[in-house]
Amino acid sequence: MRKKIQKVIGIVLLLLSTHYAFSQNKIVVFQSDFGLKDGAVSAMKGVATGVSPDLKLYDLTHEIPAYNIWEAAFRLQQTVPYWPAGTVFVSVVDPGVGTSRKSVVLKTNTGQFIVTPDNGTLTLVAASLGIAEIREIDEAVNRRKDSQQSYTFHGRDVYAYTGARLAAGAISFEQVGPVLPKKVVSIPYQQAVLEGGTLKGNISILDIQYGNIWTNISAELFNQLHPQYGDILHVTFFHNGKKVYQGDAPYSQTFGAVPKGKPLGYLNSLLQLSFALNEGSFANTYHIGSGSEWSVQVTLSHKK
Amino acid sequence: MRKKIQKVIGIVLLLLSTHYAFSQNKIVVFQSDFGLKDGAVSAMKGVATGVSPDLKLYDLTHEIPAYNIWEAAFRLQQTVPYWPAGTVFVSVVDPGVGTSRKSVVLKTNTGQFIVTPDNGTLTLVAASLGIAEIREIDEAVNRRKDSQQSYTFHGRDVYAYTGARLAAGAISFEQVGPVLPKKVVSIPYQQAVLEGGTLKGNISILDIQYGNIWTNISAELFNQLHPQYGDILHVTFFHNGKKVYQGDAPYSQTFGAVPKGKPLGYLNSLLQLSFALNEGSFANTYHIGSGSEWSVQVTLSHKK
Amino acid sequence: MRKKIQKVIGIVLLLLSTHYAFSQNKIVVFQSDFGLKDGAVSAMKGVATGVSPDLKLYDLTHEIPAYNIWEAAFRLQQTVPYWPAGTVFVSVVDPGVGTSRKSVVLKTNTGQFIVTPDNGTLTLVAASLGIAEIREIDEAVNRRKDSQQSYTFHGRDVYAYTGARLAAGAISFEQVGPVLPKKVVSIPYQQAVLEGGTLKGNISILDIQYGNIWTNISAELFNQLHPQYGDILHVTFFHNGKKVYQGDAPYSQTFGAVPKGKPLGYLNSLLQLSFALNEGSFANTYHIGSGSEWSVQVTLSHKK
Repeated sequence: MRKKIQKVIGIVLLLLSTHYAFSQNKIVVFQSDFGLKDGAVSAMKGVATGVSPDLKLYDLTHEIPAYNIWEAAFRLQQTVPYWPAGTVFVSVVDPGVGTSRKSVVLKTNTGQFIVTPDNGTLTLVAASLGIAEIREIDEAVNRRKDSQQSYTFHGRDVYAYTGARLAAGAISFEQVGPVLPKKVVSIPYQQAVLEGGTLKGNISILDIQYGNIWTNISAELFNQLHPQYGDILHVTFFHNGKKVYQGDAPYSQTFGAVPKGKPLGYLNSLLQLSFALNEGSFANTYHIGSGSEWSVQVTLSHKK
Repeated sequence: MRKKIQKVIGIVLLLLSTHYAFSQNKIVVFQSDFGLKDGAVSAMKGVATGVSPDLKLYDLTHEIPAYNIWEAAFRLQQTVPYWPAGTVFVSVVDPGVGTSRKSVVLKTNTGQFIVTPDNGTLTLVAASLGIAEIREIDEAVNRRKDSQQSYTFHGRDVYAYTGARLAAGAISFEQVGPVLPKKVVSIPYQQAVLEGGTLKGNISILDIQYGNIWTNISAELFNQLHPQYGDILHVTFFHNGKKVYQGDAPYSQTFGAVPKGKPLGYLNSLLQLSFALNEGSFANTYHIGSGSEWSVQVTLSHKK
Repeated sequence: MRKKIQKVIGIVLLLLSTHYAFSQNKIVVFQSDFGLKDGAVSAMKGVATGVSPDLKLYDLTHEIPAYNIWEAAFRLQQTVPYWPAGTVFVSVVDPGVGTSRKSVVLKTNTGQFIVTPDNGTLTLVAASLGIAEIREIDEAVNRRKDSQQSYTFHGRDVYAYTGARLAAGAISFEQVGPVLPKKVVSIPYQQAVLEGGTLKGNISILDIQYGNIWTNISAELFNQLHPQYGDILHVTFFHNGKKVYQGDAPYSQTFGAVPKGKPLGYLNSLLQLSFALNEGSFANTYHIGSGSEWSVQVTLSHKK
């Protein structure tokens, strides 16, 4: 009798544990330069759903400008930290598809996974979150069945498939493929530094919806100048080292602190020094771009 | 022995109830003016997933024109009624971020929740669905951990976080914060009325994909004129009270009832009086806009 | 005692089977020409969620050009095969809404369902995946409650509602409505053929993000010419039978095989013959379109 009861308990626990064994977070987040007008993103999600219908599939963005690896790198840095450990990102901006760039999965020190070609896409996230481990995808085993003939859609046949299998627990991280040295292909850019009272940094991205300019200068570095709201920032933007804009902007807590159309400096949602026009587009008005070729210098005058 | 069996039943029911206790609908629907090109929407969803990976996260739209509170209000009115009770909407069109506008959660009389700054976004949904209760978000407790330094991304740190916790059952509606009077910040607009045979109303929105013009005149009000298909509608559109367009359009059941490019009046999917060109754009052709500043007058001639 | 234990087991199995009985894949994939700027897509998803909050709702695309049935047909052909059997597609490109076109659900030979107006949308998927069965939606029963007054949003009231009920197991395929003959409304186009050494086919679509040109000529047909990488393809594009472009392009394994801006021929991710400019837009540069009115002819010269 006791045995029977134990059996019942056993069955119950087995069934429940089966249910929960697969209950990792099972989240896959996709990024690409495919746009949303055709079926490419949906094909990737179909392949992932075929691996396991229990996965939850989300998007970072699919509007990365075509072939813009820098922006793919930035979007990952911007969002990966807000997703829980165990989340699998699949990032496909891959101008070198079919060439010899490696296909990898990076595990960050904070526990998220990124499945991507190692073509610079990992530049910023490797620097900011750190590399716990990086593995090369063994395409001999981690590749959608019957897809060997297709040379041009790794996003669907290798990256989405492998990311889904990892997220669903169908393979372990080890089964992705062999460990690589903790090093990624990196795009060079102006690191954020404070030199003799001048902040130097990179224009990492435009907040394109509003035309705001985001730099890689952190609040921590900026605060070494002991800024107060109302202090004046003297800012210069450069493209390939050539001056494109020079002007003053008060350091402000809110956009409404300056009149409509006027410039201000502020800390954005990533706590990095940024510049905006209140209810206007700084980028469009002054023709400022972003990426590894753009840099910024800032000094500060305390208000009287 | 009986006790043991009861214990087994107890464990089973406990485990199952744990499973189902959280089985509210667990749906969060996001709206913003962020666009889909950067990582802002994904960061909000990451925060929500961190609250509970079991949530299902959907979008209303993120293409609200920047700072256009009226349109955010309209999109909520247009869609909230089609989602089941218990659904949590997070709407972030927030030109006043960082200023003194309140952050609130409104529960409609039909049981949906809307998490938003109280800046006019609730104008239309409060009027059409009614306010069951409205609470101010207590940001001292309902705020993502370690986010106090950031002043500019309430959407992620307060709204997405609070909406997700409410949807997941991590907090009750009461735990959002103190009850407010049943009143929201409202944008003034021409209410729909019938005065001496003339229908007056507001151009609430453009059906932008097709360029159709949607008014706030309901089928119920319109039907007081006893319209028949084929009757002629004499329509005038005004911007800030100034006439912009005047013309005739037959009341039609289908777009195909008039030749290509010709105007017609019809009841849209919200059962509100609307105007279109068959396979053309009324809005682009005649430069008609929408919002609180646009109004319409309509009279009707019965066909012979 | 034994009975009690059996009862416990019974309860457990019942509860678990209840849980799993509904565990079809429960996936609905939406396609439309609504765009993402208004609330139409969200209203459809709200209705589907109201049917069952357990459904997982994804998108194929909502950026089908307005009324472009051909492109809707192509996007289905492009993606349906990558989703598992049991997935329900809801496709709403419906210029004839309110007219006499039939509303149907097609089950493919590979087990996916497509809910759509039968207006040409099924042209390509019926040809490539085959028709297992096709049923007309009985709108007397398969229609959202209280929606009879609305004439213009079948997508929400009939298609999304019926698709969701089918995906959730609330109705069986039989309960959709009466069986129809295995025949769909078809748009005429140039079938892919090899005639006397010349390949003829249709330009089925542009890979618009990149401006590449995709034909309906399969790798299998193309391979009858025994192509080698580096062989020259002589290609002519026609619009309504009139020559628009004529030129040569090497058959290449990767885009990088030709200089920037130069044309190449390749097999795309659907293993169909396609044409591109390396890091450029073939379609924009040479004004090439796609659809039933566009065709292509190709001959091949082996490299020396």
